[in-house]
Amino acid sequence: MKKVAVIMGSDSDLPVVEKCLNQLKKLDIPYEAHIISAHRTPMLAHDFASNAKANGFGVIIAAAGKAAHLAGVLAAYTTLPVIGIPIKSSTMDGLDSLLSMVQMPSGIPVATVAIDGAQNAALLAAQMLALSDETLAGKLEAFKAEMEAGVIEKDRKLNESL
Amino acid sequence: MKKVAVIMGSDSDLPVVEKCLNQLKKLDIPYEAHIISAHRTPMLAHDFASNAKANGFGVIIAAAGKAAHLAGVLAAYTTLPVIGIPIKSSTMDGLDSLLSMVQMPSGIPVATVAIDGAQNAALLAAQMLALSDETLAGKLEAFKAEMEAGVIEKDRKLNESL
Amino acid sequence: MKKVAVIMGSDSDLPVVEKCLNQLKKLDIPYEAHIISAHRTPMLAHDFASNAKANGFGVIIAAAGKAAHLAGVLAAYTTLPVIGIPIKSSTMDGLDSLLSMVQMPSGIPVATVAIDGAQNAALLAAQMLALSDETLAGKLEAFKAEMEAGVIEKDRKLNESL
Amino acid sequence: MKKVAVIMGSDSDLPVVEKCLNQLKKLDIPYEAHIISAHRTPMLAHDFASNAKANGFGVIIAAAGKAAHLAGVLAAYTTLPVIGIPIKSSTMDGLDSLLSMVQMPSGIPVATVAIDGAQNAALLAAQMLALSDETLAGKLEAFKAEMEAGVIEKDRKLNESL
Amino acid sequence: MKKVAVIMGSDSDLPVVEKCLNQLKKLDIPYEAHIISAHRTPMLAHDFASNAKANGFGVIIAAAGKAAHLAGVLAAYTTLPVIGIPIKSSTMDGLDSLLSMVQMPSGIPVATVAIDGAQNAALLAAQMLALSDETLAGKLEAFKAEMEAGVIEKDRKLNESL
Amino acid sequence: MKKVAVIMGSDSDLPVVEKCLNQLKKLDIPYEAHIISAHRTPMLAHDFASNAKANGFGVIIAAAGKAAHLAGVLAAYTTLPVIGIPIKSSTMDGLDSLLSMVQMPSGIPVATVAIDGAQNAALLAAQMLALSDETLAGKLEAFKAEMEAGVIEKDRKLNESL
Amino acid sequence: MKKVAVIMGSDSDLPVVEKCLNQLKKLDIPYEAHIISAHRTPMLAHDFASNAKANGFGVIIAAAGKAAHLAGVLAAYTTLPVIGIPIKSSTMDGLDSLLSMVQMPSGIPVATVAIDGAQNAALLAAQMLALSDETLAGKLEAFKAEMEAGVIEKDRKLNESL
Amino acid sequence: MKKVAVIMGSDSDLPVVEKCLNQLKKLDIPYEAHIISAHRTPMLAHDFASNAKANGFGVIIAAAGKAAHLAGVLAAYTTLPVIGIPIKSSTMDGLDSLLSMVQMPSGIPVATVAIDGAQNAALLAAQMLALSDETLAGKLEAFKAEMEAGVIEKDRKLNESL
Repeated sequence: MKKVAVIMGSDSDLPVVEKCLNQLKKLDIPYEAHIISAHRTPMLAHDFASNAKANGFGVIIAAAGKAAHLAGVLAAYTTLPVIGIPIKSSTMDGLDSLLSMVQMPSGIPVATVAIDGAQNAALLAAQMLALSDETLAGKLEAFKAEMEAGVIEKDRKLNESL
Repeated sequence: MKKVAVIMGSDSDLPVVEKCLNQLKKLDIPYEAHIISAHRTPMLAHDFASNAKANGFGVIIAAAGKAAHLAGVLAAYTTLPVIGIPIKSSTMDGLDSLLSMVQMPSGIPVATVAIDGAQNAALLAAQMLALSDETLAGKLEAFKAEMEAGVIEKDRKLNESL
Repeated sequence: MKKVAVIMGSDSDLPVVEKCLNQLKKLDIPYEAHIISAHRTPMLAHDFASNAKANGFGVIIAAAGKAAHLAGVLAAYTTLPVIGIPIKSSTMDGLDSLLSMVQMPSGIPVATVAIDGAQNAALLAAQMLALSDETLAGKLEAFKAEMEAGVIEKDRKLNESL
Repeated sequence: MKKVAVIMGSDSDLPVVEKCLNQLKKLDIPYEAHIISAHRTPMLAHDFASNAKANGFGVIIAAAGKAAHLAGVLAAYTTLPVIGIPIKSSTMDGLDSLLSMVQMPSGIPVATVAIDGAQNAALLAAQMLALSDETLAGKLEAFKAEMEAGVIEKDRKLNESL
Repeated sequence: MKKVAVIMGSDSDLPVVEKCLNQLKKLDIPYEAHIISAHRTPMLAHDFASNAKANGFGVIIAAAGKAAHLAGVLAAYTTLPVIGIPIKSSTMDGLDSLLSMVQMPSGIPVATVAIDGAQNAALLAAQMLALSDETLAGKLEAFKAEMEAGVIEKDRKLNESL
Repeated sequence: MKKVAVIMGSDSDLPVVEKCLNQLKKLDIPYEAHIISAHRTPMLAHDFASNAKANGFGVIIAAAGKAAHLAGVLAAYTTLPVIGIPIKSSTMDGLDSLLSMVQMPSGIPVATVAIDGAQNAALLAAQMLALSDETLAGKLEAFKAEMEAGVIEKDRKLNESL
Repeated sequence: MKKVAVIMGSDSDLPVVEKCLNQLKKLDIPYEAHIISAHRTPMLAHDFASNAKANGFGVIIAAAGKAAHLAGVLAAYTTLPVIGIPIKSSTMDGLDSLLSMVQMPSGIPVATVAIDGAQNAALLAAQMLALSDETLAGKLEAFKAEMEAGVIEKDRKLNESL
Repeated sequence: MKKVAVIMGSDSDLPVVEKCLNQLKKLDIPYEAHIISAHRTPMLAHDFASNAKANGFGVIIAAAGKAAHLAGVLAAYTTLPVIGIPIKSSTMDGLDSLLSMVQMPSGIPVATVAIDGAQNAALLAAQMLALSDETLAGKLEAFKAEMEAGVIEKDRKLNESL
């Protein structure tokens, strides 16, 4: 299976990004995680994205906060799908990160998920890879069924307690 | 090749969505376009999304404005990747559509592109399908090279005119 | 009397929603509370709303956060009035929930109250039911008088302490 | 049947409010329309709301822009349900009107619809009145079916033209 | 001297409003403080504002949060200047209160100060009263000089510590 | 009677500010209008505000857009009340002007009216001057009565036309 | 004198950017203008910024809209000061461009001017170059004096016309 | 070398501003720090900025919150480059400070950095001074290389721990 690259702009993003890594593990999707800054290590960003396809990656997930350029910068150097996780920082409640990620110009899309939506970034990557992997597609169906059962169970407990 | 479904919430979204359809055509990606409202035709939305995979679709693109629930509603019924295009409406400059689409809860991602970013929705769908289609991947590389050449040509013209 | 359905998208919404349940109890309005997710249990949402009127409900209250589609999804399947409580989540201070709930397209209204305005959702449901129930209308008049007396008492205490 | 009161803060709100009046007419719901300003004619607002129930009204709809206090001011004087239509004005794109209407304190709800959502205000009023009027409930079911048929027809036309 | 009325919508506003009361005391301006809710005690609001001038008040200060109608409602019943203090509440960071207070329609001004700007409300009231009271004007000049001296002293200390 | 100073930051503000000048004229309040820029003519701003009281002014009205520092800069040099009119400019829909004007630090209030609320700035100045001028107070009462009559007349016409 | 580089992300930015070029011309500052897209021509951006100092540039001005990464991307490859002009685009009124430019992470500043503030970008570049160029400093002083005289003249004309 | 002036509007800004002072120290750039309020000590602001160039300053950094006029007020009195640090205050999450600083009118630029971006203000000042100081330029290159190495080291540690 193609690997997923999970790139974060700073190690301070790790507590959020871990939910992404955990979800990938649960789905047995091979991944690599790296800290690459679009602004502090721009050549690393260039090198990583330019070679990602050749290096066996299928999807790139990028997490960054504030002027969150990372996803767009990686997308500039690859035709692989790039998923963006806008990280809430100490100011502006994540709106800056969201707009910086999602408002990409025509020609270079970034598939943006919710602010701090790290688990969904993993699931979205899985959905993309599952397009040619029926085993993974089956796992996603199972995950969906589990979620549904989980809500039903919570509703049952709520009504017991009321 | 798997088809792309392009669903819009209202025929008033068509002028924006056409950029998506045109880009899919240019990349020779088979698609179907439909008007399905999450609120006015909820059973159609349910039926379409539930059967999309079985009907040969690989990716669903959903365009909607204001309380833009369409992408999330479709995503609830499928494990195919769902791409959301937030449409700018007459109030709130598209912020309502963007937040309604992108802020999805854990478990059900929507890959959101820019407000009115219809062309990028098509390119993102193409990137997903290209994961298992080298011909399409090649077309995306060519598209990227054309864009680059286009900017260089515009810069040349600008400097002639200055 | 017709029952009120209080639906929340997640058990994490319960601390806010409890103010709604308590107010309904104080007014002796019969209600059921359920956890139903528009995205994780969409068929439950469909079933509940489609049958709500036949099952003796008069009003549906829906509480949800972020891309708060729940109220709109329920409203799509019923002609009962649907009241939306936008829940403040960890980002965007409730603005995402508010816009996702209130900006509904023509044809499918959601009666939206304030962010985290759970008590008012109960009162609004009571006002609707009181249109054909003079006893309940009397209770609402009494509640209004109590509130007024409460403010006057607080003003008296303030002026004693100054 | 109980009447609906449609109150607007200024005659400049009429072009939006007309969609509300037209929808009430189509549903054969008796209504009165008035211009009453919360700030310029506060005693009229007081008198109207205080006597609304005695005068045969069941629901009050209030439309106003900017610091849109009208709905809240009317709600202060009645226990009838009050529906608020935030009107988009020349600045702030309707956000000021929306927040001024929807963010009501505990005890005094305003059922807020979308910015400029005049048609939905009428439908919401109808849903409330239909709680004790099966004929009206039937009309709302028919309206819902018509909307559904309308979307299906638009989809058919779109696919003919593509 | 004419009195200043300091009206707050709820006793929860008192911690902020106290800075206003303290500043009035320091300037020896007579005042009364009251809790009056525009929505829970609308007739009190009407009575207070209608009689404020006759009762010896010169300026009304109103503090309220969320859909902060209080200042506008009081202003509707008087031609005395009304100063509004938008109170930051648990959601929207005070933006709702600010817009609800400041965006008044033509004809009924509210002199709005900063979010939680209670001290400035007192100073603004003092500036209004000082238009016909040279002693008070002198106190305001002295206050300004003290502030200036305070900053200079803080700068001196900063430079000692650096 | 003390004069009102109407200062605008740029001649492009005149179309909005004229409503202020017209209202002052209607109330027979003497005024001077000047273009003074806080940033392009800072010494003029200093000189004007420092000498305003001695030159017979009682109230200063300042209109400015974008980073609308004018009102605050004038307020820094005087203890006269300063009224701010935030002017909507070509970007940000007036929110920048509003926040720049209203969010003043403790010690230096600016009495802010609505975005483009020029007429209300004049009325607010009149209310301040009327504190020691019963003739002017009478004119404000008459203006209020006229506004009320105007709304009632508009309501009458609306109901004739319906 | 060192040259100023004026980089715009798209030829659609030229109408705004021309005010920058004109101001540089008036100050006799040598400049080059280029269209370079951070996303469509990332290697050009890399090459330009990496070699800018060696090629005789002293300051880089970057204009871009929406997810305006251009200034940050250039700043990543140089230690020359980079000035950002956020361009207002068709949605979000420039807020997206502003936040994407200004919210840079620690270590990589972008000197951001107002939305569409192209003239000020030129003046800021001139101020930087004038730090070691007294002739240019003199021109800036003269420009400031002209602006002041211009405002005074406009005030004179206003008062003639009133 | 020319000195950098670091002006803060209040001593409460010091915890943020210290990151600026520390960065200047690390780069051996001479600086002075002062508390000067645009509103409480306007004449000090005037005097400081008017004489800054003559007193050996090359760049002015100004930090302020809320209606953050300080940078603009200083810029009005000098042709030195002025860098603005918008300080996040207790309300509005820094948006008020940012807009008040960055939205300057044509003719008077303020080079605005991120909300609370104090370290970047120091680096930006250094970049300006380095235009005529190759030693300082070398230090900035070294700082950039250190940052790059720091990110690479963090990535190495992350991958050890995974």
